[in-house]
Amino acid sequence: VNAPLCVLGAGSWGTSVAALCTGEVRLWARRSELAAELNETRRNGRYTGDLELGPSVLATSSIAHACDGAAAVLVAVPSAAFRDVVLEAAKELSTTTPIFSLTKGVERGSHATMTQVIGECTPGAVVGVVTGPNLAKEIARGLPAACVVACADAEAARLVQERLHGPRFRVYTSSDVAGCEIAGAIKNVLAIAAGVSDGLGLGDNARAAVITRGLAEMVRLGVALGGNPLTFGGLAGVGDLVATCTSDRSRNRRVGLALGRGESVGAAVDSLGEVAEGVVSADPLVDLARSKGVELPLCEQVAAMVKGASTPAASFAALTARPARDEWDPALLSEEHG
Amino acid sequence: VNAPLCVLGAGSWGTSVAALCTGEVRLWARRSELAAELNETRRNGRYTGDLELGPSVLATSSIAHACDGAAAVLVAVPSAAFRDVVLEAAKELSTTTPIFSLTKGVERGSHATMTQVIGECTPGAVVGVVTGPNLAKEIARGLPAACVVACADAEAARLVQERLHGPRFRVYTSSDVAGCEIAGAIKNVLAIAAGVSDGLGLGDNARAAVITRGLAEMVRLGVALGGNPLTFGGLAGVGDLVATCTSDRSRNRRVGLALGRGESVGAAVDSLGEVAEGVVSADPLVDLARSKGVELPLCEQVAAMVKGASTPAASFAALTARPARDEWDPALLSEEHG
Repeated sequence: VNAPLCVLGAGSWGTSVAALCTGEVRLWARRSELAAELNETRRNGRYTGDLELGPSVLATSSIAHACDGAAAVLVAVPSAAFRDVVLEAAKELSTTTPIFSLTKGVERGSHATMTQVIGECTPGAVVGVVTGPNLAKEIARGLPAACVVACADAEAARLVQERLHGPRFRVYTSSDVAGCEIAGAIKNVLAIAAGVSDGLGLGDNARAAVITRGLAEMVRLGVALGGNPLTFGGLAGVGDLVATCTSDRSRNRRVGLALGRGESVGAAVDSLGEVAEGVVSADPLVDLARSKGVELPLCEQVAAMVKGASTPAASFAALTARPARDEWDPALLSEEHG
Repeated sequence: VNAPLCVLGAGSWGTSVAALCTGEVRLWARRSELAAELNETRRNGRYTGDLELGPSVLATSSIAHACDGAAAVLVAVPSAAFRDVVLEAAKELSTTTPIFSLTKGVERGSHATMTQVIGECTPGAVVGVVTGPNLAKEIARGLPAACVVACADAEAARLVQERLHGPRFRVYTSSDVAGCEIAGAIKNVLAIAAGVSDGLGLGDNARAAVITRGLAEMVRLGVALGGNPLTFGGLAGVGDLVATCTSDRSRNRRVGLALGRGESVGAAVDSLGEVAEGVVSADPLVDLARSKGVELPLCEQVAAMVKGASTPAASFAALTARPARDEWDPALLSEEHG
């Protein structure tokens, strides 16, 4: 009994994941022309270049067809389209079908994470995330990587692990959905900060300091939202943060680089040609953190920069003007967080 | 009352730190020719290029002169020479003078950390470390960075913080000497692994996975040696690890890059012209971990590679052949480490 996996979204990551899966896969593309191209050419030229889709991948522009009899649904559409797509899919799914988010971001307006959106669209469904240092363009080229599949339902996590795990893609399981998801959302914002630091020419020490203080922001917000501190030291946390902050393949980092070199926000975003989730998520994440009483100095500066309310030079001057003290807040040093 | 700081060792890091300090500094160079050159030209051409030493820095080849009346001693010589230099200095110091290690490594043979060496040479002395993402060549160029000064004696830590802190060098304090020190030693070994990954062309996802699984090794060993888990998420841990693993200015990373591209160990080390502590520390660290019942798979492969007992391809094949499972050992998930 090898029911098909359903992948919603045929961008670079959705296509790459569909190609990694063992067994039958239905890959949903919104545009029927793209679905036809995928089925005919076995390639997604715009997003994944020469990556070949095996014969067990069937592309379709029908969500009903994609969802029919699926063992699990993996949703890989940008956060701005996420709710609409999940609502459409929910009509086609039994309530026992696990749904995993492959999207790292926060919904504008609601401030909801992607699994919260899934939960609102399909009450009672088993919900999880797939995350980690997974730059899609590298995976599309067959380079090795590792990821985390997080779900409160260990059986659902193992199902996805078994279908995705292979010699070039190591899949670890976790039960910490909240921690994995907030890590994936905030790292996109922090990658913009790291890119700005490099765009300003501040060097590798400064970038490492941005990553480290960014990790502290991730831990503070993640713990406030119920995440396990260990998650942030793992692939979903440090791993993804480091990859996104240091790889020139990262869209969010590239936006920051352009800003640091003096480009306008509009020019920096336009030159990408793809969505940089960190640009969209910065403001909602800062709001979400404030509502929990958590301070995110780096994210606040990114939110100001992408709104045009601050410049890279002014933002970094503000950050370094903060007083230096003990590295960790004494509250974090309490026995609760070891 | 602004007693001089004493910096032992006029390599790239010792010279850079001497230049950063406020107030009077005595900078000890083993070779009297170098001390004379530093005093005359105000530069250390070989190690720090155009970095200018201010008028408050006095270079000397006399350890007695360097130590005389020092408020604190900062030791920045390679691990292989560390014990001899500290023994010489100890004869000149009162037992109340705090001694800080600026060297990241483990002594060959004894497996002692640098602060343990200091403790053996000067029983009863106040001992600390200065560590963090501090690539000397960048600091010598005036680029910004942050560090951690760790000492059980908070007053001694603050003394060094006050003398080193400035707009371009942010100094945080910590009381976790053991954690800071083991982080600094193991990151050099892990940087060789990251360099090998890049030398093999495995990509940014793979490098991020090496850094993340390397951090897990750092946490396991550091906690076993009495370190605070939070230290490894901070500048001394993640921060220094990321800088050393991703910067082409890192000597240890460069050794790994050369190995990954197929050079011999001898050629990789020779082409550096400076000591790469990770080459020396790999074996002692693996031994130290074994004596504590801690497994360090990445460090073990590095130790094998630098001994010529394994090749980059064989080592990475061995690492990826390990079974994938839960990301963290269940023992680490116990309430003790939250």
